[in-house]
Amino acid sequence: MTRIGFIGIGVMGQSMAGHLMDAGHELRVYNRTALKCESLVARGAKLMSGAGETAAESDAVFTIIGFPKDVEEAYLGPGGIVESAKPGTLLVDMTTSSPALARRIYGAAKARGLGSCDAPVTGGDRGAREATLSIMAGGDEEDFERALPMLRLMGKNIARFGGAGCGQLAKLANQIVIAGTMMGVCEGLSFAKGAGLDPGKFLECVEGGSAGSWSLSNYGPRILKGDFEPGFFVKHFIKDMKLAAESSEEIGMELDGLSAALAQYEKLAASGGEENGTQGLFKLYDSMLKN
Amino acid sequence: MTRIGFIGIGVMGQSMAGHLMDAGHELRVYNRTALKCESLVARGAKLMSGAGETAAESDAVFTIIGFPKDVEEAYLGPGGIVESAKPGTLLVDMTTSSPALARRIYGAAKARGLGSCDAPVTGGDRGAREATLSIMAGGDEEDFERALPMLRLMGKNIARFGGAGCGQLAKLANQIVIAGTMMGVCEGLSFAKGAGLDPGKFLECVEGGSAGSWSLSNYGPRILKGDFEPGFFVKHFIKDMKLAAESSEEIGMELDGLSAALAQYEKLAASGGEENGTQGLFKLYDSMLKN
Repeated sequence: MTRIGFIGIGVMGQSMAGHLMDAGHELRVYNRTALKCESLVARGAKLMSGAGETAAESDAVFTIIGFPKDVEEAYLGPGGIVESAKPGTLLVDMTTSSPALARRIYGAAKARGLGSCDAPVTGGDRGAREATLSIMAGGDEEDFERALPMLRLMGKNIARFGGAGCGQLAKLANQIVIAGTMMGVCEGLSFAKGAGLDPGKFLECVEGGSAGSWSLSNYGPRILKGDFEPGFFVKHFIKDMKLAAESSEEIGMELDGLSAALAQYEKLAASGGEENGTQGLFKLYDSMLKN
Repeated sequence: MTRIGFIGIGVMGQSMAGHLMDAGHELRVYNRTALKCESLVARGAKLMSGAGETAAESDAVFTIIGFPKDVEEAYLGPGGIVESAKPGTLLVDMTTSSPALARRIYGAAKARGLGSCDAPVTGGDRGAREATLSIMAGGDEEDFERALPMLRLMGKNIARFGGAGCGQLAKLANQIVIAGTMMGVCEGLSFAKGAGLDPGKFLECVEGGSAGSWSLSNYGPRILKGDFEPGFFVKHFIKDMKLAAESSEEIGMELDGLSAALAQYEKLAASGGEENGTQGLFKLYDSMLKN
């Protein structure tokens, strides 16, 4: 049994922290909007009032929070996690965030005798609920090995890709694949509709073939029902694609597909689709048909 | 038993015509390079010396040939299929070709009392071999119904999307989905490699998740082995994307993902990758890393 601090009790964190509790770990939880901690607290988690305070009372700290600036503040800000954790504490950031920030956190953590991993995930709310997330980790081998039994309570495909930041780089590569795929899915379905075909019949005919993808099978039916509710928020996907674009520039790559997808999603956000799920991109193309 | 003329005995046509023979139909075959007809002829197919001659001796004619200009010549050229077929003959073009051309062939065919369907396929050489192709058809309901028992010998997911040209439109929508997906797959894998990650480990970690697709699972392993042999030729994919771009313009859509993919594949072709398989796009990104 480990005393675990879990910071960021959103849709994902709620399920993930729950799995850690189910395995008998003693949970401390913190979220900016405390209300979201309610059900975990009802099950015995201790409600904390800040990230630093959470870290100070934990042997391992897991975070999954919104944006890199939130991660930076929580870890490196005054009274934050790195400053407050006792030497020997293991820090695991599961937010999709910047590889460079992951390396800075690692450096600061090591200077204080802390363990540190970046370990972003894919699989969405469903993967979190069913503990089938894919987890892409970076950091020292020994820190990863220490985190592994706990990561296994939350996910299935778990791999360490190298030193600090490498988990983030793998996650960004994953988002680059998704960016192209989502653009293809939304353009193809809207073209089918625009060309006067039955999009449902189209989806059924092609999803088992070479155009098939997780995105097509999962978002296709929602798109056809006009359901643009977020599984994965447009605003978060834009954040990820920007990080990916920065990193690809750093290694001298011009990824025109990624650039096109980012531009399209920014157009969608500018027209009010920021709080939609990523399948909302369909609407951008669909609106061309109405003009 | 129907007397079937099969025109275009390439990798796909060879298997498809074979299935029709296996079911007991009497085959006449024609291919510009006659040599490719050898094994079907050895099994009893009659070797013909031209498209018109093939049509004249058949009750149903199937074609799967390279480019729209080849389709136009075979169907509408002097001494071609439409001119030579006896009234009542059913014509089925399975080439991925232009919707407008499909409508012209339909018009010319109907004027001569012929049946006419466009019925392009997806599923590649393997789908052709295993008779699991998806077939997207357009044309009159009664012509489609007449073709259906024969189409069922070649494919599994078979749907009629509307009148003449609608099969082609559905196939183009399919190619639009693939265009985005392939760009995502090749950009993501090359980014992973460029970022210093193990691309094999990356593929294994993410292919079962939300980045997963037929393209990632089928082409990812080939890319990692450096195998760029054609399953589906770059030159044919470029042809398809150009047709899709024309059609999307006609219906007033700007598909930026499709445009980006077409531009990337044209760059690849210009640098000598025309005869590669579509997974060759990886090389375009990979070459950025070497500079």
